[in-house]
Amino acid sequence: MIYKKENETSFALGAFAVRELLEHKIETVRKIYISRDLKPSIDIDFILNLAKSNGIRIEDGTKVIDRIGGKENIYIMAEFFKYESVWGEGNQIVLYNPADMGNVGTILRTALGFGYHNIAFIKPCVDVFNPKVIRASQGAIFSLNIRLYENFDEYLEENKSIKKYLFMLDGENILQSTPISNEPKALVFGNEASGLLPEVRQYGIPVFIRHSKDIDSLNLSISIGIAMYHFSQKSR
Amino acid sequence: MIYKKENETSFALGAFAVRELLEHKIETVRKIYISRDLKPSIDIDFILNLAKSNGIRIEDGTKVIDRIGGKENIYIMAEFFKYESVWGEGNQIVLYNPADMGNVGTILRTALGFGYHNIAFIKPCVDVFNPKVIRASQGAIFSLNIRLYENFDEYLEENKSIKKYLFMLDGENILQSTPISNEPKALVFGNEASGLLPEVRQYGIPVFIRHSKDIDSLNLSISIGIAMYHFSQKSR
Repeated sequence: MIYKKENETSFALGAFAVRELLEHKIETVRKIYISRDLKPSIDIDFILNLAKSNGIRIEDGTKVIDRIGGKENIYIMAEFFKYESVWGEGNQIVLYNPADMGNVGTILRTALGFGYHNIAFIKPCVDVFNPKVIRASQGAIFSLNIRLYENFDEYLEENKSIKKYLFMLDGENILQSTPISNEPKALVFGNEASGLLPEVRQYGIPVFIRHSKDIDSLNLSISIGIAMYHFSQKSR
Repeated sequence: MIYKKENETSFALGAFAVRELLEHKIETVRKIYISRDLKPSIDIDFILNLAKSNGIRIEDGTKVIDRIGGKENIYIMAEFFKYESVWGEGNQIVLYNPADMGNVGTILRTALGFGYHNIAFIKPCVDVFNPKVIRASQGAIFSLNIRLYENFDEYLEENKSIKKYLFMLDGENILQSTPISNEPKALVFGNEASGLLPEVRQYGIPVFIRHSKDIDSLNLSISIGIAMYHFSQKSR
């Protein structure tokens, strides 16, 4: 067994991510694999009891864990069906063509930390359910509402009224001076290398995080962290 | 030839980093290696002319580039002598026992973007001059003043008067409400996993970046980006 993007299931690796999965998306779990080197712990007991009481199969899977987990030392793993979330009100992060799996994992975890629960991915983009993304998010993905859109128009169609801040290197509004409001907002970011395309500009407020000319741009995950932080401050 | 931490030289990989090295620390450069697959470009011409006019040897080094650069496609590389910087006034980032090379590279680049030119490393810590750190910093390291300290006491001894903000999960000051001042400051961060030790607390202002309880902590490089961003705002 190997993981493929086209598969209908993916894997949460390690006790921390498996626990997050069981606590937040237990209805998607297909099976739990444990390695013969798994050591008992409070976390492991909690996981195995929760699985048993929900009728989830637990299976020896030392080999399959090694195949999916690669070089990392993983002793427990859960297989789950990929899912799409519904979402209602609340702040959004919109990732337009993100390409780096580690980056996306960090972004998901940071989004959870700042209470941005609705995350939109505009294709083409990374395989959101790749085990590497899930691992980099440290299981945060299971607490978030993830939606995949074929293109930006489809996103706009479903999210007409929310106020959109578009992060662009030539944004005419400086984030440092942008008023802090409490109304639900979408923070929109482009690809790591190419940024947001100019044609997106008309759909929101173009914003630039002021930095020195000594660097071309801030790293994507740093920019998103800063943007969420900005709006976490009290209004001025 | 392989790179080792104990070596007195290290390597900048790729045209971008080599150019940054030549522009900012040319006095440290020992030699330039070029691959037989190197394609001419304005950047390459600039590098080779600058090297020639400074009497720096340029040598064919396809094999040695592959050995140092690993799987990445690198066609030009510079060998330079490791150096220590002096520093004067100005903002500092203090990294106490950082362990992740990619993280440190991103931090260096972000620091340059926010005008924090003085970077202190408290040992034990990553090999600051490892080619991977230099590459992750995209050459930003060559524009910064780097100082290595054997321990925190040595850092304190040399940096008595600067105002220190200590980023700790149990910091009693919330960054979001911390006054923004223009005086030179040091932002001090602990190890990725363990954070700052409690005994450091007496030497500065303990600060916490408020986030939800859904995550244990923010990623180190995100925290540092946010902290520098905070102080880049106008005072309130």
